[in-house]
Amino acid sequence: MSTPTPTRVDTSGALAALVGGRLAGCAEVRITGVASLAEAEPHHVSFLGNPLYRSRVVSSAAGTVIVPEDFAEPPPAGRAWIVCADPSAAFMQAVALFAPPPVSFEPGVHRTAVVHETAVVPATAHVGAGTVLEAGVVLGRRTIVGAGGYVGQETRIGDDCLIYPNVTVRERCLLGNRVIIHSGTVIGSDGFGYIPGKDGHTKIPQVGTVQIDDDVEIGAQVAIDRARFGRTWIRRGAKIDNLVQIAHNVIIGEHCFVIAQAGISGSTRIGNGAILAGQAGVAGHIEVGDGAVVMAQAGVTKNVAPGAHVFGSPATDPKIHARNQFALKNVAKLQAALRQLQLEVAALRHQIENP
Amino acid sequence: MSTPTPTRVDTSGALAALVGGRLAGCAEVRITGVASLAEAEPHHVSFLGNPLYRSRVVSSAAGTVIVPEDFAEPPPAGRAWIVCADPSAAFMQAVALFAPPPVSFEPGVHRTAVVHETAVVPATAHVGAGTVLEAGVVLGRRTIVGAGGYVGQETRIGDDCLIYPNVTVRERCLLGNRVIIHSGTVIGSDGFGYIPGKDGHTKIPQVGTVQIDDDVEIGAQVAIDRARFGRTWIRRGAKIDNLVQIAHNVIIGEHCFVIAQAGISGSTRIGNGAILAGQAGVAGHIEVGDGAVVMAQAGVTKNVAPGAHVFGSPATDPKIHARNQFALKNVAKLQAALRQLQLEVAALRHQIENP
Amino acid sequence: MSTPTPTRVDTSGALAALVGGRLAGCAEVRITGVASLAEAEPHHVSFLGNPLYRSRVVSSAAGTVIVPEDFAEPPPAGRAWIVCADPSAAFMQAVALFAPPPVSFEPGVHRTAVVHETAVVPATAHVGAGTVLEAGVVLGRRTIVGAGGYVGQETRIGDDCLIYPNVTVRERCLLGNRVIIHSGTVIGSDGFGYIPGKDGHTKIPQVGTVQIDDDVEIGAQVAIDRARFGRTWIRRGAKIDNLVQIAHNVIIGEHCFVIAQAGISGSTRIGNGAILAGQAGVAGHIEVGDGAVVMAQAGVTKNVAPGAHVFGSPATDPKIHARNQFALKNVAKLQAALRQLQLEVAALRHQIENP
Repeated sequence: MSTPTPTRVDTSGALAALVGGRLAGCAEVRITGVASLAEAEPHHVSFLGNPLYRSRVVSSAAGTVIVPEDFAEPPPAGRAWIVCADPSAAFMQAVALFAPPPVSFEPGVHRTAVVHETAVVPATAHVGAGTVLEAGVVLGRRTIVGAGGYVGQETRIGDDCLIYPNVTVRERCLLGNRVIIHSGTVIGSDGFGYIPGKDGHTKIPQVGTVQIDDDVEIGAQVAIDRARFGRTWIRRGAKIDNLVQIAHNVIIGEHCFVIAQAGISGSTRIGNGAILAGQAGVAGHIEVGDGAVVMAQAGVTKNVAPGAHVFGSPATDPKIHARNQFALKNVAKLQAALRQLQLEVAALRHQIENP
Repeated sequence: MSTPTPTRVDTSGALAALVGGRLAGCAEVRITGVASLAEAEPHHVSFLGNPLYRSRVVSSAAGTVIVPEDFAEPPPAGRAWIVCADPSAAFMQAVALFAPPPVSFEPGVHRTAVVHETAVVPATAHVGAGTVLEAGVVLGRRTIVGAGGYVGQETRIGDDCLIYPNVTVRERCLLGNRVIIHSGTVIGSDGFGYIPGKDGHTKIPQVGTVQIDDDVEIGAQVAIDRARFGRTWIRRGAKIDNLVQIAHNVIIGEHCFVIAQAGISGSTRIGNGAILAGQAGVAGHIEVGDGAVVMAQAGVTKNVAPGAHVFGSPATDPKIHARNQFALKNVAKLQAALRQLQLEVAALRHQIENP
Repeated sequence: MSTPTPTRVDTSGALAALVGGRLAGCAEVRITGVASLAEAEPHHVSFLGNPLYRSRVVSSAAGTVIVPEDFAEPPPAGRAWIVCADPSAAFMQAVALFAPPPVSFEPGVHRTAVVHETAVVPATAHVGAGTVLEAGVVLGRRTIVGAGGYVGQETRIGDDCLIYPNVTVRERCLLGNRVIIHSGTVIGSDGFGYIPGKDGHTKIPQVGTVQIDDDVEIGAQVAIDRARFGRTWIRRGAKIDNLVQIAHNVIIGEHCFVIAQAGISGSTRIGNGAILAGQAGVAGHIEVGDGAVVMAQAGVTKNVAPGAHVFGSPATDPKIHARNQFALKNVAKLQAALRQLQLEVAALRHQIENP
């Protein structure tokens, strides 16, 4: 008995059937790949994910476009729309069909890796070329530590982690399961702590560690300092973008988003589900409440209440921020009104003095 | 027959002749190296490149100084000026004479490099110690991939590229010719994309790639994310400084300058010849027009017209920015004028009520 | 003759004696480690270092807490306070007692390191796995260059330096004694210099170097560019945090603090003992005076006087900054006063015109 060959999805009609969408137009448009509306060619499938780009659907060269249910315009001859409740999700299915398979890493320790005799590496783990695992390191099952990596003494990494090439994790850190870390990132560097002195600053030993919980993803070029003592703590499900700075003893709450180039100073706590947008900064010893949103480039110098949104530098709530912006715009009007009043008063005086 | 020994350029007179400048002062000042006005010693040649530093020429210890044609002051005894139309260009010639030769990398693959059997490495290319080239990598002629580098599966790098040590280029990226990448940089990390959820965010696969065209230079510690699908695209001749963040699906136009610590969010397009100054940020899905200039620390939240200059956070055009600054300065005056008017009105009332 | 066993410090009483503090409460509270007030368990010693956290002392689970002399509240039953003039210093003694010993690196060159035959490596130095030392490199005594490091041609590193794994130091740099550099950092990348042109920018050779003096510490992911000519110079005792950008020909004064994600543009000089706070930016060719303080996220566009503090972007002195903030708050009041005056003038006119 032979397994039936799966139907190949290579036309607009077949893709519509697969994603459960309604086909409008030609069912035989050939599909060989995915692309954005701006970059697509006739044999690509694209999608309208952002209503802002509505006008680009017809003008796109994409032969097939996945559109939302309220998209009224009919497809030109020889093209096809696939009408869906959630074009973004349907497009993700298409991407999975046509994208090249993700890179895989075979289990095993590369012959050029340098693994200390006390390190524990399960047979299902991958240790890349030139990677160093120091004494007492423990890797979980199916965990990948890419080429050129460094894992310091006694650091423990859980199951199913994916550490891309050229990542540094210093000694005595603790990583949970399914943690992803992108290239260039450094975990566990010393916190920035000194006793200042006119003739030199004395380094405060940074003897704590970094704990990263399950399902955290950390971008490229991130720096997460180890604690002065205790731990710097990235909690479950938090997602951290590129070039972010996380200082010693910071706590990042569960499922937070910390966007690129944001920076968080020492001992600050970010609540669960909070969002720090790009290039935002948070001072030390601050509490940012659960679900709070710190807008891009904001500079937070005081605690932020749960659920609050803050803007600007120094960061304020949206009402104060709007009032400031409004006041600026009205100064010119104020000035004109004052000028007018001065003229009126002069006229009155003239009238009184020359009755 | 012997080749004539080239004249050694080691005096002010010889250098003036070489750069085609007019000598003022002593022709026999010895020159052994180059230095800035502030750091020069008597046997150095320096230059006046910035009119701001005009007063430093005479007080500098430099024996020889390359000066512009409008520099009137004569050299003190025992020193020399070399008068040129373009002192900066002339000084570059001097630098080339006295600077140590640039580091060279011999063709060949270092014995500790790990090159997959399917990778294509021309005999003229250099692959440094410990560098990893994965399956399907193609390097161009005379291309250098420095020590500790990582090049992922099927990535193609053109001719005459210079990839400094400890750079990571992930799978399926495409680099043109004469691309320079400085140490620590990461190309092709995953874009930051999730479907948010209260109990955890679902990762959106980032199956696109990064394309870097001819003559691009990228500084140290830069992060350039791969596209969600399609490509993140750095176009011909763009120059990117250190610690810059470039998110997924961004397009950087030809010959752009992106200065240190600037950050560009997903799907934004920067036009040809635009300049993003240091620490500037641009939101996602924005268009910055050809030749536009985003000033340092600006935060761009709306499209920027071609050729426009924008300032501040949120970024506005220079007129609005100036009006805001002016308004702030005038509030105090406005307040004084109002106070004055209040007194006048009170006086008038008194006059009316006590005729 | 046997060495006497040192007294083990494992109770509140023994620790009080060791740090020279006065014990309040129970002398027999067991101590097995250190922790912050928020994270401590009963067998931990904690401390009150920041008066803001005064209310947390009693509510903390810490069995033993080091408190300042003005802390009046008595310890609950079964707990102990250790009363000290300087709780922070006393706590550092406790940390040293209970912290795991710092990681040590054995003298010697790892078998996988690639050391050029002309490099000088004293027997007391450590060169980690896979580390590359190019021709003419000189390491000082007891200096450590961790795994995956790269040190370029003719770079000299002094005694007792600690270069963490995966650091890149390019050619011809000069490092003093007791320099610490954290992982991921790049020293000596090319400065960002081009002669701009419509059809392409011409690279200006960056033939200078980087000099780092004694007792400097540099965080993770820092980029320090080499000079165009001459040197980029980090002077004695300066402390530089993570993800900082230092452009070509910058001078950082003695004992400066440069906090995370700050950026300094080309040829700028930072005076001795100055502080640049997080995410601050300084334009090129600026002088920041000795002891000046640039606040977080400030953008410095003009020289800063010695000892001055500057805020905001563009950065201004605190008086102007305060005046701006005050003006904004008063516009609404001004508006109300103007409205009132308009009514009064209207009433006066009515009175005059209807006598």
